[in-house]
Amino acid sequence: MLIGKVVGSVVATRKDEKMMNQKFLLVQVHDQNNKPKDQYVVAVDAVGAGHEDMVLYASGSSARQTSITDGKPCDAVIMAVVDSWDLGGNNIYEKWES
Amino acid sequence: MLIGKVVGSVVATRKDEKMMNQKFLLVQVHDQNNKPKDQYVVAVDAVGAGHEDMVLYASGSSARQTSITDGKPCDAVIMAVVDSWDLGGNNIYEKWES
Amino acid sequence: MLIGKVVGSVVATRKDEKMMNQKFLLVQVHDQNNKPKDQYVVAVDAVGAGHEDMVLYASGSSARQTSITDGKPCDAVIMAVVDSWDLGGNNIYEKWES
Amino acid sequence: MLIGKVVGSVVATRKDEKMMNQKFLLVQVHDQNNKPKDQYVVAVDAVGAGHEDMVLYASGSSARQTSITDGKPCDAVIMAVVDSWDLGGNNIYEKWES
Amino acid sequence: MLIGKVVGSVVATRKDEKMMNQKFLLVQVHDQNNKPKDQYVVAVDAVGAGHEDMVLYASGSSARQTSITDGKPCDAVIMAVVDSWDLGGNNIYEKWES
Repeated sequence: MLIGKVVGSVVATRKDEKMMNQKFLLVQVHDQNNKPKDQYVVAVDAVGAGHEDMVLYASGSSARQTSITDGKPCDAVIMAVVDSWDLGGNNIYEKWES
Repeated sequence: MLIGKVVGSVVATRKDEKMMNQKFLLVQVHDQNNKPKDQYVVAVDAVGAGHEDMVLYASGSSARQTSITDGKPCDAVIMAVVDSWDLGGNNIYEKWES
Repeated sequence: MLIGKVVGSVVATRKDEKMMNQKFLLVQVHDQNNKPKDQYVVAVDAVGAGHEDMVLYASGSSARQTSITDGKPCDAVIMAVVDSWDLGGNNIYEKWES
Repeated sequence: MLIGKVVGSVVATRKDEKMMNQKFLLVQVHDQNNKPKDQYVVAVDAVGAGHEDMVLYASGSSARQTSITDGKPCDAVIMAVVDSWDLGGNNIYEKWES
Repeated sequence: MLIGKVVGSVVATRKDEKMMNQKFLLVQVHDQNNKPKDQYVVAVDAVGAGHEDMVLYASGSSARQTSITDGKPCDAVIMAVVDSWDLGGNNIYEKWES
């Protein structure tokens, strides 16, 4: 899985029938230090992620292992919303910091 | 999935028998800001995409999850025509703007 | 799929038993403008491609969806010989031009 | 598989139901000379790896072939803790050196 | 498949139970001209490759299509030892040259 930030969404009316009612989110990939990478992915949302949430997404056939994406032409799925992560003992990201 | 633009098509008479009657489109990959990337893919069209349409394509085994590509040696499929997308609250692309 | 040119072949006597009688071709990947990229793949030939033919190859599990590669440890297959392609309305490659 | 070092962990409360009780580790990819690469992955831990352990991880559908990850939306799994490796006859890494 | 050279091996005692008795080889990827690339992979050996052998390896789910790797968390397998290859009519590598 890679870490990303939900930065937008994609609207597509004409799509494969299996993709009806799927929500496509635009995810900016971040590195382990929470710096945006020059990489994005359009992923189906399986967990109700919100705008600007940090998320984990899975790619390839693993993206079809949720009840929402099973058997569908989907190669990327958001399967977790990130609360926090640490790197080398330092807290890098905290969702609820205030 | 990644965002791409249909920029051409590929003709191939001699091909695996399972690929008969498949339409191969040349798709230029675009980034999240709608700038062309130095990357392309030849994808089977599952949704009737037209020249210069912005599309979403799925790769790998997920490319075989449409009725058109099921069980075929196809690793990329156009599974949606993009109407619009936004990034950070800004509209980046709008199919029907005039 | 990506576009490539058949530039050579690989001989391997000691190989997995499922790969007996498979023909390994060395394929130089080309970009959409028919310029060679700094990328190659060794692919099994499912369509009888010849030296210097422009071809399409499929990767990953999709490479096992031909009768020749089914169930085999093969992650790249030539599944079409390219006759021609166009890009932005211009003919980029024509097999039979004279 | 690639070699990596466990450098942190990711906490995610809201996740796909199949991912409940999965431990997400942040793995820094290393090259064959044990130099960190500019690449990371978030992997499920199938072997009880500890902080700063050198590990092997498998990607894609192969990441689902452990009893812990079977059928789950997981595209990277730590499937071994590395004791040592050599390169060109030289020992590059030794877990228990003192 | 890609061409690589066996340059070392990786020892891992603690590993997924399905990986017991698997031999992990460190493979340096080479380009089509037999120049080492800045890329490596740790692959399971399905053909008894020796140190410094040039080999072909398959990645992803195709790496599980040998009797040794079937159903295992393995994403790269050496499935052939290369005897020779040519490129553009020139012999690039010959195992038995003297």
